[in-house]
Amino acid sequence: MKLLLIGFGTVGQGLAELLLEKKEALAKQYNFKYTVVGINDMLKGSIYDAKGIDLAKALKTVKSDKKLTGGPEKALEMIKKAKADVMLEATYTDIKTGEPATSHIKEALKKGMHVITTNKGPLALNYKTLSNIARKNKAKFLYEGTVMSGSPLINLIRETLAGSEIKEIKGILNGTTNYILTRMEEGLSYEEALKKAQELGYAEAVPDADVLGWDALAKVTILANSVFGAELKPFDNPCEGITKITADDIKKAKANGKRFKLIGHIWKEGKKVKASVSPQQVELTHPLAGVMGATNALTIATDTVKEVTIVGPGAGRRETGYSMLNDLLHLNACKK
Amino acid sequence: MKLLLIGFGTVGQGLAELLLEKKEALAKQYNFKYTVVGINDMLKGSIYDAKGIDLAKALKTVKSDKKLTGGPEKALEMIKKAKADVMLEATYTDIKTGEPATSHIKEALKKGMHVITTNKGPLALNYKTLSNIARKNKAKFLYEGTVMSGSPLINLIRETLAGSEIKEIKGILNGTTNYILTRMEEGLSYEEALKKAQELGYAEAVPDADVLGWDALAKVTILANSVFGAELKPFDNPCEGITKITADDIKKAKANGKRFKLIGHIWKEGKKVKASVSPQQVELTHPLAGVMGATNALTIATDTVKEVTIVGPGAGRRETGYSMLNDLLHLNACKK
Repeated sequence: MKLLLIGFGTVGQGLAELLLEKKEALAKQYNFKYTVVGINDMLKGSIYDAKGIDLAKALKTVKSDKKLTGGPEKALEMIKKAKADVMLEATYTDIKTGEPATSHIKEALKKGMHVITTNKGPLALNYKTLSNIARKNKAKFLYEGTVMSGSPLINLIRETLAGSEIKEIKGILNGTTNYILTRMEEGLSYEEALKKAQELGYAEAVPDADVLGWDALAKVTILANSVFGAELKPFDNPCEGITKITADDIKKAKANGKRFKLIGHIWKEGKKVKASVSPQQVELTHPLAGVMGATNALTIATDTVKEVTIVGPGAGRRETGYSMLNDLLHLNACKK
Repeated sequence: MKLLLIGFGTVGQGLAELLLEKKEALAKQYNFKYTVVGINDMLKGSIYDAKGIDLAKALKTVKSDKKLTGGPEKALEMIKKAKADVMLEATYTDIKTGEPATSHIKEALKKGMHVITTNKGPLALNYKTLSNIARKNKAKFLYEGTVMSGSPLINLIRETLAGSEIKEIKGILNGTTNYILTRMEEGLSYEEALKKAQELGYAEAVPDADVLGWDALAKVTILANSVFGAELKPFDNPCEGITKITADDIKKAKANGKRFKLIGHIWKEGKKVKASVSPQQVELTHPLAGVMGATNALTIATDTVKEVTIVGPGAGRRETGYSMLNDLLHLNACKK
């Protein structure tokens, strides 16, 4: 399988590390053999060789802050030129425009190239368009890493819950806010907890995307559109973050056997698919209540096994890199 | 796909109901089309027709306490005779002998028939033998329902965690004991909680298999052998149930921020695979601590996404029937 890596930041590098580390095991266990033909990154440079590049060397170059050379500077040009079976898209996420990732994905799919992405922007904004282009060009479009990173979620619903009707999904889709709420329950104020989260690298200097619920909103929209077949745009849905929750609210909730969580929710009202993000008081006896720290969790209600909850990491270099590897193995299995 | 149902109790009937209910959806969504050619049950009779039987009618017959007729009385004879692609084995579980299910499965696999089972006995006792026979005869041997019933677990590890090395699995594999421990925390004595569980049909009149840990032990052995490639027999492993735990123990644990759970555990010591069942004090901050009532849950530690926990039902007519449907869809996908 010939691979083209567009975006070579944390996630792209995480994937590259796993591909190198597991090369023999993957060939032996899954008959999965790969060649990376190109890497393009806005900041880290570009390299291309139709016969395959030296991935270990490219990784080393980037880690020592040198630039990759020998490939087209512009990602789109690279995608047009490259002879690859799969494009792995891991450029930065912009959930307002979905760009530049959406253009990259369109270009690749139109060539009949399979696409694997961890990028929430294109999924939240253009799911239907992109999956239609994929279908028309007989290309696969996979995106396990967009929700709960490498914790199985999209493929869990598609494969291991196959044949079930998904009735409702709700859960904790943002680790940063869950970490802040956990620390607030331990006695910190919102400001103190946010500062801790920033020190640990969970929250950014401008923490809006997390604390105002936008990151969870993007994921909720992805699930609404891809699992429930809706055509929602992120900011069409009600969205409230955690900025108004006080230590006192948390104490009161706990006294009532409940715990505040920022809950992303997708459900049906008749034939209509609804989605929202809001702080909710979860019963302490529900599996979601026990999910503490920067962990994510989703409860999936079905017509077969009732409620299934999956708890796992929602971010991380190796974890998100793994989501792409898992999608690659999925493609490889389909090929046979 | 021609199906042969051996065992037509709760689980077999649960599957039949789902097959009927979802017939059109399965054909449309997964291109899965089936004919049931025979049903054999020790108590409920036997019916066979190479052209296909009327499944709805058979279900109705059994529900009105009448016997199925027109098929060989003995299951083995039916398996030998039947022209089917898949045998669905759901006879009663005997985790000491693994019979009669083991003989049924051997017979079917030797004919090159795929086998799907929910029966813990053959898996816990004869996993290696059976999977070797399957491989030799190019038949698939699937058993999602043996652990956590229809909650995705075996297929979750095989598919959605593909490419990951599984380091350790631990969790709550028996709903009855988890229900009893939950009620004891609410103030009931062990005897009172057991009585409640018996009234609700969770525990049997002779509750040994649950409360002494044997049911969890069978599941732990299945995971050790099928996921870790061990060759353990159930009663080779340390096993302690919940009968010695007092309300006082539970109170003390809680005061220390912990909660008693009956934990099944599989891990590696060097190259050796170890397994055990024992009551353990789980930190309240761990996802397993929050799993209350008759629910099951497993935490899977991997080299890629660290810890992933799956929480869901571990029993039930529809749930366990669904595990077989999920395996059928898996087979169907492999066919293509």
